[in-house]
Amino acid sequence: MTDPGSALQRIAAINASAAFNRLARFEVVAAGDGAAELRMDWREEFTQYSGYLHAGVIAALLDTACGFAAASIVGEVTASHFSMNCLRPAVGRRFVAKGMTLRAGRKQVFAAAQLYGEDEQDRRTLVAIGETLLVPLGVVDER
Amino acid sequence: MTDPGSALQRIAAINASAAFNRLARFEVVAAGDGAAELRMDWREEFTQYSGYLHAGVIAALLDTACGFAAASIVGEVTASHFSMNCLRPAVGRRFVAKGMTLRAGRKQVFAAAQLYGEDEQDRRTLVAIGETLLVPLGVVDER
Amino acid sequence: MTDPGSALQRIAAINASAAFNRLARFEVVAAGDGAAELRMDWREEFTQYSGYLHAGVIAALLDTACGFAAASIVGEVTASHFSMNCLRPAVGRRFVAKGMTLRAGRKQVFAAAQLYGEDEQDRRTLVAIGETLLVPLGVVDER
Amino acid sequence: MTDPGSALQRIAAINASAAFNRLARFEVVAAGDGAAELRMDWREEFTQYSGYLHAGVIAALLDTACGFAAASIVGEVTASHFSMNCLRPAVGRRFVAKGMTLRAGRKQVFAAAQLYGEDEQDRRTLVAIGETLLVPLGVVDER
Repeated sequence: MTDPGSALQRIAAINASAAFNRLARFEVVAAGDGAAELRMDWREEFTQYSGYLHAGVIAALLDTACGFAAASIVGEVTASHFSMNCLRPAVGRRFVAKGMTLRAGRKQVFAAAQLYGEDEQDRRTLVAIGETLLVPLGVVDER
Repeated sequence: MTDPGSALQRIAAINASAAFNRLARFEVVAAGDGAAELRMDWREEFTQYSGYLHAGVIAALLDTACGFAAASIVGEVTASHFSMNCLRPAVGRRFVAKGMTLRAGRKQVFAAAQLYGEDEQDRRTLVAIGETLLVPLGVVDER
Repeated sequence: MTDPGSALQRIAAINASAAFNRLARFEVVAAGDGAAELRMDWREEFTQYSGYLHAGVIAALLDTACGFAAASIVGEVTASHFSMNCLRPAVGRRFVAKGMTLRAGRKQVFAAAQLYGEDEQDRRTLVAIGETLLVPLGVVDER
Repeated sequence: MTDPGSALQRIAAINASAAFNRLARFEVVAAGDGAAELRMDWREEFTQYSGYLHAGVIAALLDTACGFAAASIVGEVTASHFSMNCLRPAVGRRFVAKGMTLRAGRKQVFAAAQLYGEDEQDRRTLVAIGETLLVPLGVVDER
């Protein structure tokens, strides 16, 4: 078991080191023991043409939550495969992405995440789910 | 067969109406007959912690290329499912995403896309592939 | 809420009407309210070259569990998209697949499933997870 | 470049060593240089409840074509992730699955496949597409 405090600090530092995460103002609110939670406030400039959150930003939140969940136990990772299902239009004053590691092998890590939209009364609605297959950076193919 | 000229204008207008696409400066360079091509110049602020293009932006490019390919024949669509495989680190001075419609049914549309990184000599390397399952907006579930 | 008893009977009848399900001896042990559980005993003739359960049979179990979960609330469905992650080698004296409906819209249904291998002491190990995007048969495109 | 003749013999031997492939009477008709082609005649006992080819058998054909395509250049592999899109009802007197390696790294291999249904006049219709992420057996996690 990892020290949740230090895992959170380490993951928050990775988050701060990623330019897109800073631009999107992703906030890591929990990380440790194979799980992680991210938040992002609604951003008008992150919408698609119907005014909902853009699929790319939904993907960024889900993929990052998976990556941070994995990184909390295996160190830095990179995603090989990502998929998501968009269950409902992604709206809310804030978004919460929760990632969980399903299996951490030496060569591959499987993680899954849920994305919730939060309304003015802090009620959460599940808007999308995603999953990733990650490779620990130590073993990435040189390419 | 649709008129490629008017399809391109229509898709470019959809692109211009999406706030995230404007922020990312996506440019539609071709659209018609079930295919579409998007470009985006390298953006330092769109990187992840290793300095490569962020997975969310890769997803945005692939998903948008699929959506525009589909929209060129069936009108506005929304993605239910998206998946991608990241074959190589996404680097380049510019990115080119090519989408193609695989099957356009009345209720569901299948599309696939490739993302290339382009170097200073305009040589392209395939960095990721993606696919979407889209629903024409006229038939989306009220939710 | 559906009547779990009649949902189970109805799903068991669908299971019995599918030739492959009979060949594989899939047994529906629960179905109702958007969930379903399937079992299948180990079959030597269903293995791949390493002696583990074949990926196609893993897919059949996961996809069927998803389809039956959805069918328990929306009637007959057909899968448009299926994906799975194989977490560990699929071995066991028996396999148990549990499906759950994530969202049932009029035009699309999202479902997910887990596959467990069961050992001689009835201990279960999660060997694979899968998800489907299904279309209720009433609304399938004529094709 | 591998010797296509010996690659085909090697892949055909892997095919013959897999119990499910024998049961399904998969026939490897080509394998080499990162590509492979499989055939299977229509089997009444491989259908789902509507009388089309069962999703599990579609998955088996697509996954196996991907695996053999990869095995033709990197040796034995195992699939971590598999996904497919079912474009049309899978019918035909015979099915043809064509797999292609997209990228073969030392630790991960990406492959994709198409499944065609063939009618009495040998006309082929694309019924499904699939993709896999494979791990060369030499580097699989001990688990």
